[in-house]
Amino acid sequence: MSYKLTILGCDSAIPTVNKQQTAQLLNVNERFFLIDCGENTQVQLRKYQLSFQRINHIFISHLHGDHYFGLIGLITSMHLLGRKKELHIYAHIELKEVINVQLSASNTSLNFPLFFHEIPLDEEIILFKDDTLEVRNIILDHTIVCSGFIFKEIKHKRKIKKEKLEKFEIPFDKIPELRKGRDIKLDNGKVIFNSDVTKDPTAPFSYAYCTDTRFCSDIVKKIKNVDVLYHEATFSDKDFKIANKTGHSTTKEAAKIAKKAHVKRLIIGHYSKRYSNLNELLMESKEIFENTFLAKEGDILDFETLYKSNNI
Amino acid sequence: MSYKLTILGCDSAIPTVNKQQTAQLLNVNERFFLIDCGENTQVQLRKYQLSFQRINHIFISHLHGDHYFGLIGLITSMHLLGRKKELHIYAHIELKEVINVQLSASNTSLNFPLFFHEIPLDEEIILFKDDTLEVRNIILDHTIVCSGFIFKEIKHKRKIKKEKLEKFEIPFDKIPELRKGRDIKLDNGKVIFNSDVTKDPTAPFSYAYCTDTRFCSDIVKKIKNVDVLYHEATFSDKDFKIANKTGHSTTKEAAKIAKKAHVKRLIIGHYSKRYSNLNELLMESKEIFENTFLAKEGDILDFETLYKSNNI
Repeated sequence: MSYKLTILGCDSAIPTVNKQQTAQLLNVNERFFLIDCGENTQVQLRKYQLSFQRINHIFISHLHGDHYFGLIGLITSMHLLGRKKELHIYAHIELKEVINVQLSASNTSLNFPLFFHEIPLDEEIILFKDDTLEVRNIILDHTIVCSGFIFKEIKHKRKIKKEKLEKFEIPFDKIPELRKGRDIKLDNGKVIFNSDVTKDPTAPFSYAYCTDTRFCSDIVKKIKNVDVLYHEATFSDKDFKIANKTGHSTTKEAAKIAKKAHVKRLIIGHYSKRYSNLNELLMESKEIFENTFLAKEGDILDFETLYKSNNI
Repeated sequence: MSYKLTILGCDSAIPTVNKQQTAQLLNVNERFFLIDCGENTQVQLRKYQLSFQRINHIFISHLHGDHYFGLIGLITSMHLLGRKKELHIYAHIELKEVINVQLSASNTSLNFPLFFHEIPLDEEIILFKDDTLEVRNIILDHTIVCSGFIFKEIKHKRKIKKEKLEKFEIPFDKIPELRKGRDIKLDNGKVIFNSDVTKDPTAPFSYAYCTDTRFCSDIVKKIKNVDVLYHEATFSDKDFKIANKTGHSTTKEAAKIAKKAHVKRLIIGHYSKRYSNLNELLMESKEIFENTFLAKEGDILDFETLYKSNNI
């Protein structure tokens, strides 16, 4: 099991030599989910030695360029490098035309199937689900339509204590029942108590990604108790008026959301370039929500380690 | 007077951490012309401290992403940074929709006038002309419609020897005639010979940019005697079959064009990533055209210095 988040870029608006636009890679058990894709994301993936051919699902929050201008280049490079397997993109509908117009301009017919999944404007739905993970959109409040995402592992089944299988002579066809937490009865009539042969599974992780947005208390109930919340904090508390006007949040607004939602850890990012000292932003947030961290390009957050070291 | 070319990127297809896609900046007397605009060009401009707000004209050779995926980000950043002055884009028609679809997706109405100038499919025309410079397209032979560009300074007028103006008591209204190379007659009947009061102007520079293209002998007459030719050499001579199939040239094909056209200097670039030793590419080209140079990111070619140091 693994659940790791890599920050590929965490700056807003205009990229510079050392400031990359928004992109994150979430690794859930070696399945890779890209979240937003600012210009040059494909190079950032290379920089951190993350194979972009392993990404099968890309989630785009909204269609401001700092969140998606790197997507067409990434898709094109996947194609040029011979990708054959499916790629799924989850975004607002306008992106579909943006991609198609550019593929058409270069007369490119992709070698691989590209599936476009539209994020609804005014509805929160399950965008992706398999046996271990579910991803939903969260309606945010920005200057254009914008979605957050919540990645929730599905509750794991109980783990079998292998040494007990032999001891109690449990046939393999009984294992699914045991993993669901049920007691079983063997053919010889003997009852096996679940607690004797299974152990608790790893706790399911959850991650909420909320950028770009004004302070939006509606999201609190949707992200309640998540392990980690990434929430934009483009502005300092003192610039709250600009934040509101431009559809963004301040440090303290991000912290208030984290506090109300009882998340375990808050990561802030999407910094405006007007702030040269990001620690000041961090301090502001910490006044309200102590367990705040600054997003930093290249950071890897290993959810497993966080629990083991008990530092969430 | 200045005439300088900066190489912002000279690699083909897929960008990596140290290999930027194609983009060049031509400075003609402090007017800046961007030629192609691969992903991340805006950051490359920043890296070399070239203000992108000074660029008023952008020429896009063709609509493969490695030549234009950075354009929408550059336009957006110009907008976000408050640009008010005109921007002119010269490209094939499909790019207009690519730009419009993306501006529309982000609900962006640019603060500045954006003029789109269509490069014709099958005609070579003057794309840009003012009192000192003329830019024309050159039809190339690639897998999709593709244009080279030739930047020609217009022949400069003769320079006035300022000290002679006073000596011969020449009125200002006679200066235009003198700059055209004519003798003049003063009101007192005295004839002033042009050669006594003027000197030769700086030679007009010319630069031809030809990428992406197969070997295409048609271009020779159009780029005859230019000072500098940038010609793609994506492949080594030994890979000539792949070059032809993919619509590209080899080192020796680029050199043959340079030789036939009697250009003074050849710069090759747009290297395939299969070659780790670019010097081998250089050597191949030099076998046919000695005055070949490798394009290298960050290189600045000052046409004035080239003449002074007599090394073209």
